[in-house]
Amino acid sequence: MDRLSLNQITTKAWSLPEAVRGCAEAGVGWIGLWRDKVAEVGVDEAARLVREHGVGVSSLCRGGFLTGVEPDGSPVDGVAMTKEAIGEAARLGAGVLVLVVGGIAGNDLAASRQRVADAVGELAPLARERGVVLGLEPLHPMQCAERSVLSTVDQALAIAAEHPADAVGVVVDEFHVWWDPRLAESIAAAAGRIAGFHVCDQLVPLPDPLLGRALPGDGPIDHRMLRARVEAAGYTGPIEVEVFNAELWRQPGDEVLAKVIRAYRDHVAG
Amino acid sequence: MDRLSLNQITTKAWSLPEAVRGCAEAGVGWIGLWRDKVAEVGVDEAARLVREHGVGVSSLCRGGFLTGVEPDGSPVDGVAMTKEAIGEAARLGAGVLVLVVGGIAGNDLAASRQRVADAVGELAPLARERGVVLGLEPLHPMQCAERSVLSTVDQALAIAAEHPADAVGVVVDEFHVWWDPRLAESIAAAAGRIAGFHVCDQLVPLPDPLLGRALPGDGPIDHRMLRARVEAAGYTGPIEVEVFNAELWRQPGDEVLAKVIRAYRDHVAG
Repeated sequence: MDRLSLNQITTKAWSLPEAVRGCAEAGVGWIGLWRDKVAEVGVDEAARLVREHGVGVSSLCRGGFLTGVEPDGSPVDGVAMTKEAIGEAARLGAGVLVLVVGGIAGNDLAASRQRVADAVGELAPLARERGVVLGLEPLHPMQCAERSVLSTVDQALAIAAEHPADAVGVVVDEFHVWWDPRLAESIAAAAGRIAGFHVCDQLVPLPDPLLGRALPGDGPIDHRMLRARVEAAGYTGPIEVEVFNAELWRQPGDEVLAKVIRAYRDHVAG
Repeated sequence: MDRLSLNQITTKAWSLPEAVRGCAEAGVGWIGLWRDKVAEVGVDEAARLVREHGVGVSSLCRGGFLTGVEPDGSPVDGVAMTKEAIGEAARLGAGVLVLVVGGIAGNDLAASRQRVADAVGELAPLARERGVVLGLEPLHPMQCAERSVLSTVDQALAIAAEHPADAVGVVVDEFHVWWDPRLAESIAAAAGRIAGFHVCDQLVPLPDPLLGRALPGDGPIDHRMLRARVEAAGYTGPIEVEVFNAELWRQPGDEVLAKVIRAYRDHVAG
């Protein structure tokens, strides 16, 4: 239980103070924060709250959009946005900033991927200086066009490996990568580079590209096997439960957190 | 233009006789048939119609579900179903039977994949004897749970390579594999093994796992580059335009076919 982290998106109905207090009261020692929720109270107050409640910040979501386009296609300076996010992560004591690298720009997949690699090269020294690891998170291929031209652990590792391990790592999120036939090999190859492990399940049938997630145990993913793989690759840090699910989002935060704890106990831990 | 094939699902409003006649009138020399549409008129009548109109059958969709489960989770004897489909393909003069191998069974991905490999081994001799190539089509990872535990060209090739090339091949469908960072290498590795090439685009934003397809040119996929890759790997056969799109399905078949021809000319051929 000491590795369980609540990714804040899972309890979307909760504000940051409610989520931090909820974790402390439930004995959950870690939380993954989102920048929009942090902004509602301010970075300093958020940092104070997690310290006061003794809750560790496993990661901050998120930097990225390094291809220069938002999911809706509008232009964005992802490098500038990520520099800001690195500073926030440092102030919050988050060791990892999760990067969603951005979707395809100009209908050129190869060039978009190169832009990501170049931008990570530009950002890595700053991240290292601030004590924050950039966590490259491959996203499910169904989000390739809009959110992430990195789709596999292999790809994320290829970029991370160009930089020191305390500057750039790989975040393994089960929902995004469970189907990958090369997953076992690529996680093993990422030994010493895994900066985060996110668990959740997939709804079957998959209703929607974004909200098709479920609590661990409610879908086809073998969580204990994947946990064993990331552990064999040296990752023993916090395990975030991160579930985008419209039905869960309508429920009160404390009820959702109780379900998270149960799902983690029954399907991930032990 | 002599390589364009209308995959029948694209003109869903048309019956088989309408689609065959439509192709002949529009000067489209190939059609990809679906078993449900064939069943409406009977295999012999369908075979007679394509012969009479001088339209070649580029493939029959589909055999498969070799993991033993339908998309809705109900059990199915995919091997028996596929044996039947091999016979139909032979009678229709379709050189290729497209296989959708089936989703995850018993929440065991590795075992489900092994079941597919075993079933293909059982079916390959019959296919070869009947002059039909089993076309293993990797499906997009978002369909891994429900429809296909084969998600990449690499995976399909690994199974196909165990058998003679005139018994088992790989069908490359752009929608399913365009995002794959290993696509260039895996298509090259599949030289001499490519049994079909399906073109279409992806809607952005992706609205739905099944119907998120568009005509070539209406999305981020680089069709000429992918065509060049499959040609470099030795595939010079028919190119099927296969679009699952609810809006297109509401339109009259002849209007849809005119759009297919234009999209193919503007974005795939030449």
